[in-house]
Amino acid sequence: MSLTRRPSAVTGNILYAQSGGVTSVINASAAGVIEAARAKGVKVYAARNGILGALREELIDTSKESKSAIAALRHTPGGAFGSCRYKLKSLETNRAEYERLIEVFRAHDIRWFLYNGGNDSADTALKISQLGKAMNVDIRCIGVPKTVDNDLAVTDCCPGFGSVAKYIAISTREASLDVASMAETSTKVFILEVMGRHAGWIAAAAGLAGDSADAAPHIILFPENVFDEAAFLARVKATVERVGWCTVVASEGVRNAAGQFLAEAGGRDAFGHAQLGGVAPVLAALVKEKLGYKYHWALPDYLQRSARHAAAKVDAEQAYAVGKAAVDYALKGMNAVMPVIVRSSDAPYRWNIQPAPLSKVANHEKKMPKSFITRDGFGITAAARRYLSPLIAGEAALPYGKDGLPRYVQLKNAAVAKKLPDFTP
Amino acid sequence: MSLTRRPSAVTGNILYAQSGGVTSVINASAAGVIEAARAKGVKVYAARNGILGALREELIDTSKESKSAIAALRHTPGGAFGSCRYKLKSLETNRAEYERLIEVFRAHDIRWFLYNGGNDSADTALKISQLGKAMNVDIRCIGVPKTVDNDLAVTDCCPGFGSVAKYIAISTREASLDVASMAETSTKVFILEVMGRHAGWIAAAAGLAGDSADAAPHIILFPENVFDEAAFLARVKATVERVGWCTVVASEGVRNAAGQFLAEAGGRDAFGHAQLGGVAPVLAALVKEKLGYKYHWALPDYLQRSARHAAAKVDAEQAYAVGKAAVDYALKGMNAVMPVIVRSSDAPYRWNIQPAPLSKVANHEKKMPKSFITRDGFGITAAARRYLSPLIAGEAALPYGKDGLPRYVQLKNAAVAKKLPDFTP
Repeated sequence: MSLTRRPSAVTGNILYAQSGGVTSVINASAAGVIEAARAKGVKVYAARNGILGALREELIDTSKESKSAIAALRHTPGGAFGSCRYKLKSLETNRAEYERLIEVFRAHDIRWFLYNGGNDSADTALKISQLGKAMNVDIRCIGVPKTVDNDLAVTDCCPGFGSVAKYIAISTREASLDVASMAETSTKVFILEVMGRHAGWIAAAAGLAGDSADAAPHIILFPENVFDEAAFLARVKATVERVGWCTVVASEGVRNAAGQFLAEAGGRDAFGHAQLGGVAPVLAALVKEKLGYKYHWALPDYLQRSARHAAAKVDAEQAYAVGKAAVDYALKGMNAVMPVIVRSSDAPYRWNIQPAPLSKVANHEKKMPKSFITRDGFGITAAARRYLSPLIAGEAALPYGKDGLPRYVQLKNAAVAKKLPDFTP
Repeated sequence: MSLTRRPSAVTGNILYAQSGGVTSVINASAAGVIEAARAKGVKVYAARNGILGALREELIDTSKESKSAIAALRHTPGGAFGSCRYKLKSLETNRAEYERLIEVFRAHDIRWFLYNGGNDSADTALKISQLGKAMNVDIRCIGVPKTVDNDLAVTDCCPGFGSVAKYIAISTREASLDVASMAETSTKVFILEVMGRHAGWIAAAAGLAGDSADAAPHIILFPENVFDEAAFLARVKATVERVGWCTVVASEGVRNAAGQFLAEAGGRDAFGHAQLGGVAPVLAALVKEKLGYKYHWALPDYLQRSARHAAAKVDAEQAYAVGKAAVDYALKGMNAVMPVIVRSSDAPYRWNIQPAPLSKVANHEKKMPKSFITRDGFGITAAARRYLSPLIAGEAALPYGKDGLPRYVQLKNAAVAKKLPDFTP
């Protein structure tokens, strides 16, 4: 116990900030941070709207929130303190912003900066910790992993991903039952567009919906492969002729041989802009044009990454665990590390949290292994199933109100009084 | 008990058919039909792919299914026996099809035809019952209500609607939490396109997500109103300036002053077709063009009507109850009726099932009352909340497997041997 006890000589506050696209479980990490810090008697400030709030000295005092409000963060999607897309430039080109952060930390006695984000955030946290040392400020930086894209290095998976994976697998299965029952006279081809940017992790997760030869999804289009129109159309046709219908799951990041996103290779809207739909309507048009099949397509967009109502239990647990571990590491005096998920067994699934150097996470991108995609390019392998399946297991608890809606918490987000001159990032 | 006991002299089978777009709870109605019939010792045949299966003499013997398989229909979305979009023409123009149905009924000793669909199906069932009498065949027809569009006459609500309503209300709330947390540097306007055809019931249900003045959704676009571009843009702008962001829920059926669907008033795709996206991308383009805000949009399509994982408890119960009642009515000798839902109290919500003449349901369309839309045209009133709120209450039970996915049943769907010459509808 003595190791985890905070030496009485150590004082100071934690600053926690959310970064980049939010997820359905990023607030579970926040709950892990705040509850672990409270247990050690350390105050947590949160930056309003991510790093921008830190730069603007817009801090939130989380000690004003009740115990039950913080507990409710464990099941509330979105970013409770606000997040932002704002990447600090290099130390050389924008040293002023880094120095401003150090000033804010000094003004509010912030000794530990916990940055909940992806690889950009890991890079920022790393630079801040280095600059603090140079400026003679004792600031420890800990990264807290998060991204639905599952593309962070070192960690076995990323909090946020498992829940999107589960939502997409469930939705693929459900919508396919619908299509199957109507195919005789209606939709023959259903196309579901999923997130994931340049990585096919979410698309791959849809493959978990199908557990037999002709089960949906029949075709997955990965951003890792160049889109082969002829092979795609041949596969759609063969599937409709054999099964009666066809479910296609397409990653938003699918590109053609010229390197263009399919989503941008479509037509023009009423204002002459490149077509706004994603890859799904482009594929649908192609299927209609070349094969004549009736189609439907869906683009759940933010619905998938905010769907706390369909979150995976293990994902919510891991999100909480990395938040809690970040505080443990910080108070133990560690610096420039990120708690990552380490898998010790696929089945039964076993995992634990360990510290990894931020330098190994920063600016790296974890690609999906080629061995996860079947040779024909349209499906997932047994190896992919072994990896993915445990991540969507279990249903995360969620309280509902009498009104039939999930009971999500809205924090007070009380502002901390400013002490410094204004600063515009 | 004597009233509900089947007289021993009565013999014959039930034919059950699913019609039109399926829902996440139509199979609960099938379970209600089959379990009620089994309890009375009556065999249920199901038509494969709806009325087409009846015309083609493609019948399924549901007595080959286990008790647990039929019970699992209660939580399995889609249409377990297949459905179709196929409206029989009038008796005058296509008498042959009606006569064929009567022949199939006679060949398989079908005494009761239970047709699970909307107002078209009610019309068909009514005509069949009349023709049976004319052809001296004792056939009783019972309608079983179903439609996510909630536009059936007489019944207080339609099985299938409450679950879509719940899914859309949950999704609106969840996605809005995401947008709110990112709005500082990212998406300012989020547009969610929902189903409902010419009726705004589903769009209205999104309004349940917001329970305070500036809560999302900030704008609902109903098909009942002509789209007013200037008023819409002004409201979007005012909302973004006041709240920081704006969630718009748009019904797929929204039209402009010229009567065109907005979804069709957009641009052309790569093949020169009218733009394939729905109303959401058109609105998004408009917002970008006129106000310059960053947007995202979602189009969940079939995901909404198949989302059994987010089904409303009361909806699943009502779907089962109308199936069971249909058998009760049939075996009592009733004809040309539909079990409808009658509401006796809003809060606490109380309902019961009563028979209504098919003639009152057939070919009518229930519009949403004007009193359900706020005077500005963009929101729902207290009256709408009173009506809608009970319909999304409760979470319908759903078993999940160890793999993290709902355990949906796949029936054997054993074919009944044909007795008649082929017939091509």
